[in-house]
Amino acid sequence: INPDIASERQTASFSVEKLMAWLDGSAEHTRIRRAVVEAIECDPVFSRENQYFQSQNERYEEAVKKAVHLQKKMQEMGWTENGPEYKYIYRALAGDVAFLLHRVFMRSISMLGSDKQVAKWIPLATQYQLIGSYAQTELGHGTYLQGLETTAVFDITTQEFILNTPKISAMKWWPGDMGRSATHTVAFAQLYIHGKCYGVHPFIVQIRSLQDHSLCPGITAGDIGPKMSFEHADNGFLMLQNVRIPRENMLSKFCEVQPDGTYVRWGSQKINYFTMTSVRISLISDEVITPVMKACTIAIRYSVVRRQSKLKPGEQEAKILDYQTQQEKLLPQLAAAYAFHLISNYLQELFDRGYREIQRKNFDMLPELHAFSSGFKAIITQYCTSAVEICLRACGGHGYSLLSGLPSLYTKILASCIYEGENTILLLQTARFLIKCFMAASAGQPVPPSVTYLAAVKPGKCPAKNKLDFLSPDIYMEAYRHTAARLVSSTAAKLQDLTQSGVKKHDAWNQCTVQLARAAKAHCHYITVKNFAEAVVKIETQAGIQKIMKHLCDLFALHGIFSNAGIFLHDGYISGTQMDMVTASYLDLLPVIRKDAVPLVDAFDFTDKSLNSALGSYDGQVYQRLYEWAQKSPTNTQMSPAYERYLKPLLHKKLSKL
Amino acid sequence: INPDIASERQTASFSVEKLMAWLDGSAEHTRIRRAVVEAIECDPVFSRENQYFQSQNERYEEAVKKAVHLQKKMQEMGWTENGPEYKYIYRALAGDVAFLLHRVFMRSISMLGSDKQVAKWIPLATQYQLIGSYAQTELGHGTYLQGLETTAVFDITTQEFILNTPKISAMKWWPGDMGRSATHTVAFAQLYIHGKCYGVHPFIVQIRSLQDHSLCPGITAGDIGPKMSFEHADNGFLMLQNVRIPRENMLSKFCEVQPDGTYVRWGSQKINYFTMTSVRISLISDEVITPVMKACTIAIRYSVVRRQSKLKPGEQEAKILDYQTQQEKLLPQLAAAYAFHLISNYLQELFDRGYREIQRKNFDMLPELHAFSSGFKAIITQYCTSAVEICLRACGGHGYSLLSGLPSLYTKILASCIYEGENTILLLQTARFLIKCFMAASAGQPVPPSVTYLAAVKPGKCPAKNKLDFLSPDIYMEAYRHTAARLVSSTAAKLQDLTQSGVKKHDAWNQCTVQLARAAKAHCHYITVKNFAEAVVKIETQAGIQKIMKHLCDLFALHGIFSNAGIFLHDGYISGTQMDMVTASYLDLLPVIRKDAVPLVDAFDFTDKSLNSALGSYDGQVYQRLYEWAQKSPTNTQMSPAYERYLKPLLHKKLSKL
Repeated sequence: INPDIASERQTASFSVEKLMAWLDGSAEHTRIRRAVVEAIECDPVFSRENQYFQSQNERYEEAVKKAVHLQKKMQEMGWTENGPEYKYIYRALAGDVAFLLHRVFMRSISMLGSDKQVAKWIPLATQYQLIGSYAQTELGHGTYLQGLETTAVFDITTQEFILNTPKISAMKWWPGDMGRSATHTVAFAQLYIHGKCYGVHPFIVQIRSLQDHSLCPGITAGDIGPKMSFEHADNGFLMLQNVRIPRENMLSKFCEVQPDGTYVRWGSQKINYFTMTSVRISLISDEVITPVMKACTIAIRYSVVRRQSKLKPGEQEAKILDYQTQQEKLLPQLAAAYAFHLISNYLQELFDRGYREIQRKNFDMLPELHAFSSGFKAIITQYCTSAVEICLRACGGHGYSLLSGLPSLYTKILASCIYEGENTILLLQTARFLIKCFMAASAGQPVPPSVTYLAAVKPGKCPAKNKLDFLSPDIYMEAYRHTAARLVSSTAAKLQDLTQSGVKKHDAWNQCTVQLARAAKAHCHYITVKNFAEAVVKIETQAGIQKIMKHLCDLFALHGIFSNAGIFLHDGYISGTQMDMVTASYLDLLPVIRKDAVPLVDAFDFTDKSLNSALGSYDGQVYQRLYEWAQKSPTNTQMSPAYERYLKPLLHKKLSKL
Repeated sequence: INPDIASERQTASFSVEKLMAWLDGSAEHTRIRRAVVEAIECDPVFSRENQYFQSQNERYEEAVKKAVHLQKKMQEMGWTENGPEYKYIYRALAGDVAFLLHRVFMRSISMLGSDKQVAKWIPLATQYQLIGSYAQTELGHGTYLQGLETTAVFDITTQEFILNTPKISAMKWWPGDMGRSATHTVAFAQLYIHGKCYGVHPFIVQIRSLQDHSLCPGITAGDIGPKMSFEHADNGFLMLQNVRIPRENMLSKFCEVQPDGTYVRWGSQKINYFTMTSVRISLISDEVITPVMKACTIAIRYSVVRRQSKLKPGEQEAKILDYQTQQEKLLPQLAAAYAFHLISNYLQELFDRGYREIQRKNFDMLPELHAFSSGFKAIITQYCTSAVEICLRACGGHGYSLLSGLPSLYTKILASCIYEGENTILLLQTARFLIKCFMAASAGQPVPPSVTYLAAVKPGKCPAKNKLDFLSPDIYMEAYRHTAARLVSSTAAKLQDLTQSGVKKHDAWNQCTVQLARAAKAHCHYITVKNFAEAVVKIETQAGIQKIMKHLCDLFALHGIFSNAGIFLHDGYISGTQMDMVTASYLDLLPVIRKDAVPLVDAFDFTDKSLNSALGSYDGQVYQRLYEWAQKSPTNTQMSPAYERYLKPLLHKKLSKL
């Protein structure tokens, strides 16, 4: 073990094991998680050893192999979809596994299908007698579902739907597992009966033969080619030409086309939102917080091993984590990883509560849940994407090597800003909810508890008198609350001014969207700070954990004020002099947290295999590992024809005409 | 041509051809540039058609092929290194070409070698009788040159230097062209004579046989493996074990080891800085501004073709560039591309002036040039990297496809933040210069003209009375100047307070580095705004160019204030009410510039081949191109064994033990 990293672990101000159990939820959860990781990592089929050297084709083949093997493994281990181990499997596999869209296929049938449809299709899917996908997005259509162009025309004579891709922009594009694997898909299309359009509906369509995997008649499908990441996934395209499916294949929990062409709708359609809400909340933890924790682990461990330049003349070169600028890059990202881990738990609880209410047919929480899942999906993916980039850049040249593990974390997390709702559009949905609540609250109407603060907007000044006052959660929470409320109310006022001056409602909305998005961010930022501060109070004071979490909470909050100073200074709530105090307290926290930086990332408990990083391993043997791994690269193991073809003739002056 | 993009070109408020000539320097330059591009693009050897589908090995082989072919092409076309065509070749090739480090090898010999060494090596290199590289960075050492660990011990008995890599962290790591191509390199090593260390010196070392390209005795070398980009470059590693080179191979323009071991130094060493300065200034235009212009072209063209959701009910889906949030993402990046293009010209002129002075043995401008090239390299690379990321994300899912061209622009420009000096370290060098000048100016001593403003720090208030006042360059330039000066002076005061309270000088510096970096950024930002505003005044008022450039300058300046509101509000120079005016003027500019957005990127004059983007082509046929290109992907053209091996047994239930 590298002594430069060993020494960092001897001075931890808290128990790493205790913190780990707190993060996992209990020591028992830690035990189960570790058992799953152990079982996965000791199985050579799941190895990611050569991942950085593989082509897109090889990554896809590995992902399919792993997905198929996983079925076997789960049987062997006795893991089930409802068991306590299940949620750790994906984390342990660390990504490259196929058939994720097969699960979405199943989920959509479970939620949107009739009992009969569920009874028919779910067993087939569970036993992998077919492979499913989920075809919603089209070449020309993403977020705006109503704009989808694929058509499904009901043919009363044959009792079939005829599906078509009327033009190129209507081609399904992006669905995972569809490019090369899927045999079936749930395709969304505009339903037409007797020439009348009834809007977008989901249909089960077979696309490949179950016998020989050839494309079915009328189907054109394939892979959409290379992407910035997700090399393992066969995101696909799909074109439909007069593809006929039986009437029974339209998912019909909420509506149905009867044999005579009568369209019947029943039940609430609102529940459709709930699927998206559930997906957004679950992706935050798996696809966003895990990567940012990994990036922090890699960058912080590397920063205590890397020595560069001297802090004082005559001394040894300093660990780069001893430079204020390096601390200021990495430690706020570490604090954010903890902050978002906690808000993710909070969102999950909110969701579970909402789900229980919905099962009781109470849909009151849906708007708040939708607004929360949208806004937090947007700010967390944005914040964490930027955090991973900061970690990558903070590792200099070696961070830029794929072998550091950071580039692939970055290119993957970046996609989370785009998929499952483009972030700007999501923020504007949150903003719409906030403006509504603000108007309601101003009119004395009841609003959900999380937004009651919007009613209490008033001018005021921050009471802090010295820099230590800014280590009080009451002081900074109030600053965040005040600022979020001010941004919401001032944007509401601008909206009102515009419409009162004769601007049409939609134009007025468009002209306020930059400020609306900012207000939504401020709201989510406030809730995150508040939730962190409240979580810290609940921690038992044992084992030093509360103390270090309080430091991280302070750092997260003050970093936010320091980095967004304008919105806090704007109305004088915080004065310039107070901002200097914020800055001082913020910078003072850096060397304090720096002392525990390595134990704080050790508590995330990623194995070396799971990090797959030459820079981030537990033992800190960075340079040896970079050298060993580089030697395995195909750029060294495969002879290049470049010498014989180009270099030799050049050097020996045997190039024609030269 | 897509009518949605055609209509954008009919309403240009200025002449695209005239703007192009202004950007190029003259219509004659435009003509020459186009001729070079034409000659390169019609040559199939230089095609980049399959680039997004190639492996690292294939990219390397293509790059070598192109570099070798380029020699022939230049002869054919009569292009020379000093001709007017030369600077357009690299832009036309658009990156993937080998032997860039061969040029650095030659440049370092020209600048650091004695006349005799130049006479021996330069002809060999020019005629490619050898292939050179440049080996400075080590596994454990980047920016801090004094820390290099490679040793060169003078052996008086044989009149040789013995080069060694004493430990793994001393291994040369990253040098381009070294992994598989180079036969020679300039290696930097600590010089030892009679056991005494004389510091880092450059040595010419042969690493591969000129006969068969095998590694020379004592040499271990290879490729460092996959990186986030630069797949075409064979960045390499190099280990030296008792490698002997003749005494004549130490580059000795400024110092020499004589046969008896006497070390002699002469001339100024300052000139070494000048090489770095020159490299930093030239990379800004080739590696940073060109990519950001390309990214803007792609994202803006796509944003007038992509329609999504409705601005008004009942209407057609809107072009996404008609949304305020999309304008606010892209148009400031477009303005920045113009701003940095202009500052890059300014830096080049400053450099040329400095170079003329140096030829007259006047080194007075060196500190300012070093500070400028460092600071601007840092802020421009950082700003433009973020700009390309914004463009990528603004294109949603399709931006994330490699076929958009945006991911490869992003992963490449990101490296510019790291190479040729890590940005934080560069900003701190600029800050050191600014603090020195501030102290000198405060003491009434003379300082370079660009920083005289630091002497005139005084409290004050922005005189703007309404939002239109913020369209006056005098108003916003003064705000930038005031803020930059305030940040420099307040950080100087903090430094002084700390040292006066007994903190050691080096600790005090470290404790101020976050603020020092910020002051350096503010300085560069001010100079960029000032230079833009001054350039606008000089434009002839013809053809609408001055007017649209004035809009872009205003947008760049106001976007900077809007996005960094905190530093302008901090001391009350700009009040909250005035910040609302800034915001209003800033948002008002967006729809104005939006009208000219497509002509403004057309003026960058990138060919479709050069953009290599399915989203950004001139004709706006986005979806057709995405589909055509995807079909050529190896994920579609190569049969995958995954079906036979894994999917078929799964679907047919023939998996063992399942």
